[in-house]
Amino acid sequence: MTKVKPLGSRILIKALSAEEKTKSGIYLPESAKEKPEEGEVLEVGEGKYIDGKLVPLSVKKGDKVIFAKYGPDEIKIDGEDYLIVKEEDILAIIA
Amino acid sequence: MTKVKPLGSRILIKALSAEEKTKSGIYLPESAKEKPEEGEVLEVGEGKYIDGKLVPLSVKKGDKVIFAKYGPDEIKIDGEDYLIVKEEDILAIIA
Amino acid sequence: MTKVKPLGSRILIKALSAEEKTKSGIYLPESAKEKPEEGEVLEVGEGKYIDGKLVPLSVKKGDKVIFAKYGPDEIKIDGEDYLIVKEEDILAIIA
Amino acid sequence: MTKVKPLGSRILIKALSAEEKTKSGIYLPESAKEKPEEGEVLEVGEGKYIDGKLVPLSVKKGDKVIFAKYGPDEIKIDGEDYLIVKEEDILAIIA
Amino acid sequence: MTKVKPLGSRILIKALSAEEKTKSGIYLPESAKEKPEEGEVLEVGEGKYIDGKLVPLSVKKGDKVIFAKYGPDEIKIDGEDYLIVKEEDILAIIA
Amino acid sequence: MTKVKPLGSRILIKALSAEEKTKSGIYLPESAKEKPEEGEVLEVGEGKYIDGKLVPLSVKKGDKVIFAKYGPDEIKIDGEDYLIVKEEDILAIIA
Amino acid sequence: MTKVKPLGSRILIKALSAEEKTKSGIYLPESAKEKPEEGEVLEVGEGKYIDGKLVPLSVKKGDKVIFAKYGPDEIKIDGEDYLIVKEEDILAIIA
Repeated sequence: MTKVKPLGSRILIKALSAEEKTKSGIYLPESAKEKPEEGEVLEVGEGKYIDGKLVPLSVKKGDKVIFAKYGPDEIKIDGEDYLIVKEEDILAIIA
Repeated sequence: MTKVKPLGSRILIKALSAEEKTKSGIYLPESAKEKPEEGEVLEVGEGKYIDGKLVPLSVKKGDKVIFAKYGPDEIKIDGEDYLIVKEEDILAIIA
Repeated sequence: MTKVKPLGSRILIKALSAEEKTKSGIYLPESAKEKPEEGEVLEVGEGKYIDGKLVPLSVKKGDKVIFAKYGPDEIKIDGEDYLIVKEEDILAIIA
Repeated sequence: MTKVKPLGSRILIKALSAEEKTKSGIYLPESAKEKPEEGEVLEVGEGKYIDGKLVPLSVKKGDKVIFAKYGPDEIKIDGEDYLIVKEEDILAIIA
Repeated sequence: MTKVKPLGSRILIKALSAEEKTKSGIYLPESAKEKPEEGEVLEVGEGKYIDGKLVPLSVKKGDKVIFAKYGPDEIKIDGEDYLIVKEEDILAIIA
Repeated sequence: MTKVKPLGSRILIKALSAEEKTKSGIYLPESAKEKPEEGEVLEVGEGKYIDGKLVPLSVKKGDKVIFAKYGPDEIKIDGEDYLIVKEEDILAIIA
Repeated sequence: MTKVKPLGSRILIKALSAEEKTKSGIYLPESAKEKPEEGEVLEVGEGKYIDGKLVPLSVKKGDKVIFAKYGPDEIKIDGEDYLIVKEEDILAIIA
């Protein structure tokens, strides 16, 4: 697969399939304020600067996450759909 | 239960039932500016960065809190309703 | 009484009665920009972060204060009315 | 007189009388952007935080000042009119 | 003359007369974005806080300056017109 | 070629040709929020100030990048089209 | 020539003539977002404060630059047109 390395606090995400969503036990109503969505983290940026120091992001490759749908940019790599999301739009990790 | 770990200064909350609200002795009028609601803290994020240091949140698992209703995202886990709220939208702890 | 502990720079206030207001010698016109109100501080939050240090609030339990009416959230505890106000909305202490 | 101690960078001011204004030699046109007004400082707040240190205000009790009219809150103490103004709305000291 | 001491980063300015403007060799079109004007600095505030230190202003008494017309407050001292301008609205010094 | 050195956190980019885009395996839908585009980095600014230190940009000459289309300024150098983009508008590096 | 010394991060610029623009090999379309323009730096301000230190500007006298047209203030000195531009509105140096 073509490799896409997000910059800074951006994260490359693959949305979960309907089947995977059902299995996760989580349901995100359309009416929710941030229109959250479930997905899996594929690549993370190098981190964010806090008070002059580079701090790694709080999610990592393979994490299943709930993220805000209004934030991301859609992108197609080798025919598959992905999203580029900022860390601040990740609401929670599904564990 | 499926575990949902909120990120940063976010908090996973279960709203109190009508019965629990009555027992709490607190009544929050609909007309209040921030439309506050009562709930119990289930999970808290890892904290917030203040001047470059990670500071834990001021509420913890099990706290009963009053929080601003306009802020949160609704989420259903294994058929039950929960809310993801930011720490800044927690008004007070009921002790 | 049910105890309500405000978070951060929030303050729990009981508005003064008409009689107490008259006694205070202070009159706050309706037309004032911030619609100020008189009240007594019942509980204060743990403080605010300034340049990474937690600084206690500048009012304390028992202080009679003038505060901006547009800011607060109303709350009823055991049948009585209270307000949750941010420190920045406290204009002055009546001494 | 009832004592009113302003908080933070707030200042308690008594507007100058028409006679005092004429004597001051200063005339502030109605059309000015900030609608400035002349007054005397009666009480000042404890100061403002700058880079984590508490810095006293730049005006003191007794100073005659020009301040921006759009900013202040009106308040009546023992039947007399006063204003609560923020330090940033003080334009100049009349010396 | 009544002395007016501007506060902080504010500056007291006397606009140049038509004759002085012609002599300066500078012409400021009405259509310019900030509607600049020429004037002479009469008094400067004590400075501005940068990273916790008080830094003196970059103009001084007697400087002829170009300043943004939309910013200032007009004020009449002993019958003469003056302006109170913020340092950030001074575009340049005429040398 | 005339040399154009971008300032600060700005970057000079040559958009990829249709052929190069197809080869990259990446497809960016028109409907995406930031209208991303693919391009090659030709020149980068000297960096950005973070907490008082100059930090080099996270992309370098020759990088193929996905960037937000709404941000850039178009510029023609010796008859060819280029774009000047800010680092914050670079979404990811194609590797 | 009357000397005009810009303040802070401001820069005095002389727009390039049509002939000089053609020679530069750069063409800036009218439709570009920031309406860029070509010019030569005549005078620069003393610099900008970053984290409490005065940092010199990144352009110097004699530099040919591309700058954003929407930003500047027009000024006529001894009958000639000039512009006062902020450093943040300089897009690139032509080398």
